[in-house]
Amino acid sequence: MNAEIIAVGSEMLTPFRQDTNSLYMTEKLNGLGVSVAFKTIVGDKRTHLVSVIRHALGRADIVLISGGLGPTEDDLTREAVAEALGRKLIRDADLIAHLYTRAAARRVSLTRNNEKQADTVEGAVILENARGTAPGQWLDIVVGKYRKLVMMLPGPPAELKPMFDEQCLPLLQDALPKRAIATRVLKAAMIGESACDARIAPIYTQYPDVETTILAHLGDIQLNLSCTKPLQAQAKLRVDELAGRIEEELDDVLYSSQGETLEQIVLYYLGMHGSTLAVAESCTGGLIAARLTDIPGSSRSFAGGAVVYSNELKTKFAGADADLIARHGAVSAEVAAAMAEGIRRECGTDYGLAVTGVAGPGGGSDEKPVGLVYFAVSDKEATETLEKRFTGDRTRVRTLASQQALDLIRRRLM
Amino acid sequence: MNAEIIAVGSEMLTPFRQDTNSLYMTEKLNGLGVSVAFKTIVGDKRTHLVSVIRHALGRADIVLISGGLGPTEDDLTREAVAEALGRKLIRDADLIAHLYTRAAARRVSLTRNNEKQADTVEGAVILENARGTAPGQWLDIVVGKYRKLVMMLPGPPAELKPMFDEQCLPLLQDALPKRAIATRVLKAAMIGESACDARIAPIYTQYPDVETTILAHLGDIQLNLSCTKPLQAQAKLRVDELAGRIEEELDDVLYSSQGETLEQIVLYYLGMHGSTLAVAESCTGGLIAARLTDIPGSSRSFAGGAVVYSNELKTKFAGADADLIARHGAVSAEVAAAMAEGIRRECGTDYGLAVTGVAGPGGGSDEKPVGLVYFAVSDKEATETLEKRFTGDRTRVRTLASQQALDLIRRRLM
Repeated sequence: MNAEIIAVGSEMLTPFRQDTNSLYMTEKLNGLGVSVAFKTIVGDKRTHLVSVIRHALGRADIVLISGGLGPTEDDLTREAVAEALGRKLIRDADLIAHLYTRAAARRVSLTRNNEKQADTVEGAVILENARGTAPGQWLDIVVGKYRKLVMMLPGPPAELKPMFDEQCLPLLQDALPKRAIATRVLKAAMIGESACDARIAPIYTQYPDVETTILAHLGDIQLNLSCTKPLQAQAKLRVDELAGRIEEELDDVLYSSQGETLEQIVLYYLGMHGSTLAVAESCTGGLIAARLTDIPGSSRSFAGGAVVYSNELKTKFAGADADLIARHGAVSAEVAAAMAEGIRRECGTDYGLAVTGVAGPGGGSDEKPVGLVYFAVSDKEATETLEKRFTGDRTRVRTLASQQALDLIRRRLM
Repeated sequence: MNAEIIAVGSEMLTPFRQDTNSLYMTEKLNGLGVSVAFKTIVGDKRTHLVSVIRHALGRADIVLISGGLGPTEDDLTREAVAEALGRKLIRDADLIAHLYTRAAARRVSLTRNNEKQADTVEGAVILENARGTAPGQWLDIVVGKYRKLVMMLPGPPAELKPMFDEQCLPLLQDALPKRAIATRVLKAAMIGESACDARIAPIYTQYPDVETTILAHLGDIQLNLSCTKPLQAQAKLRVDELAGRIEEELDDVLYSSQGETLEQIVLYYLGMHGSTLAVAESCTGGLIAARLTDIPGSSRSFAGGAVVYSNELKTKFAGADADLIARHGAVSAEVAAAMAEGIRRECGTDYGLAVTGVAGPGGGSDEKPVGLVYFAVSDKEATETLEKRFTGDRTRVRTLASQQALDLIRRRLM
């Protein structure tokens, strides 16, 4: 079974907006064993919309249309689907009553144009919209000689997602042949995509029944494993077996075997040990703290820290001796170590983490080029430093440095 | 003139990857007065590709195809275009020579399959690829009775963008009727999309020749103005006139009249006054510092600051008296003020900025609910505080709080 997803809306044909509903629906469809063969984006123009829907019906078993269900003149999906299918559009009296009841409950008056939201394509099942006024529609029909499933869904993701999950997915599950899926997400830090692939390709190619996808972000690799079998236990067995072999191979870089983020893992280990952490950031300028504090409950293990952009603040907040900075330069292993020890002492935490480097584009020299970054982690036993030379622009250097710093403390905690 | 953009590649039909080339090309095409009427995403399957290209030729004047130009069996764009147009594919001897010369210069050996990159559709102009091996192709042809422009471009953005800018845009400019475009980007902080639209719609509707697009992000509104006229001066006059009237209407919330970010504006004012800033962040946890330090050269005006998640650090780094915290609670206007004054004093800067609040999901109470955030800005003259109650999840509260804090210091600096 294959699907086409059609996103309706002229705003998605500008440079500023992109359809994202299709990513969400693709993941759910893939979970049912349905692959997406085409995606189309079309504006609010009836002739265009009708032709796009006709093409889709000619080439896909399942057609999902998002957007164009509102009350305005630009909302043309209902009319276009009816025209493309050669079916009548029927104004549903119950739906009109529902629209007016809903409006009354909210003490808003309904203009007449809202009634067009009650137009249903002949034969369609109504999909209720708990978050908005425009209902969706589901059609299970025969076009030519072929069975086609057609869904009309509202454009706003907050309305589409619950409608798709709660109403379309169960209908789809009933309509499709039964199968069971197992998935796993593994993550690794500070390894390149091709280096990672070279190490694990000899393994995952032995599991042709498990789909393995590698997603690379800056300093972060995500491996998605997915397997479809008649029985859940069979699928899970295969995915877990492959995951186990990959975990073994990538033991030195793998940080998550269930999809957690690096910051979640760091906070998890800190919590497990009942330990606390403080950070002193120069070139990352708050990025590490911002990542850690994005996790709910981080305050239990993360005390805070200092953004020490100036040398004065490196001394004042992170306890790095002014003479030491003068001697080695602010970007040095010595100063990183002093900052990690200092922030740990100043904040009274179990661990101190520090970063100092040249993020660029200015500030580099032959001796200390843009991209040179020093890291240090300190606890009551020892202080450890690390030197890295990153390439690329300011955002890239800062992102890689925050990732490397979190990976450094993770390794210490393990 | 309208265009269709086709993105070729099965990876863009997964939940993990999205076509972004189309956004880039749409912006450039709009700049030439060409609107995009359709976007299609299709996998690496020849029959699908041919049908998609045929549909596009039937409904668009300009067809841009990105991807599928590499050397592998999955790269089928050349074959599909030739088939859709009913034209021959000719292996270009010069291009083959060029491929081998290039490989030799890089000391890599070329496998035989690379030669398919030299296949050109009859009548096509070759577009050189400075960043990769796969050349692009340009066709200016008549299909049926209509003139069609067809471009084949490589998928990787680093190859597509320079090829499109340096080769396709000049060819398009020659092929299209001449027109001039003027654009402006205005930005406003801490105003909702509908509130903003209600205030400016009476103005921009008086300028039907200027296209006005409103883009809403969390706490940030971007207004894009664009006007096309035969002469540049005419277009600029209209855009500037509308921009002036909008600036007047939104005087209380507008922070940028040339598209700068809020953090750029804050750093710009600080630099203009030769002033320095330090921040003390509790619930934003480093977000404000991370935004400011993302701007190259920020170290001239931004000294740094403290992420004071724990009460102890609010006292130690931001000078907020422990008794004061005990009396009013860490989330209070009094503590925000003390933090702003303290961080200014501790860091020896001209301005101190502080945020303390309940980001959620935990930590709220009846008196101090999730979303309650206090802000303070302090300079040698005075300290000012602000209370806000945001709704939504942790990420939303933190993002809005960082935006509000930057807007607060911006207002003080003006």
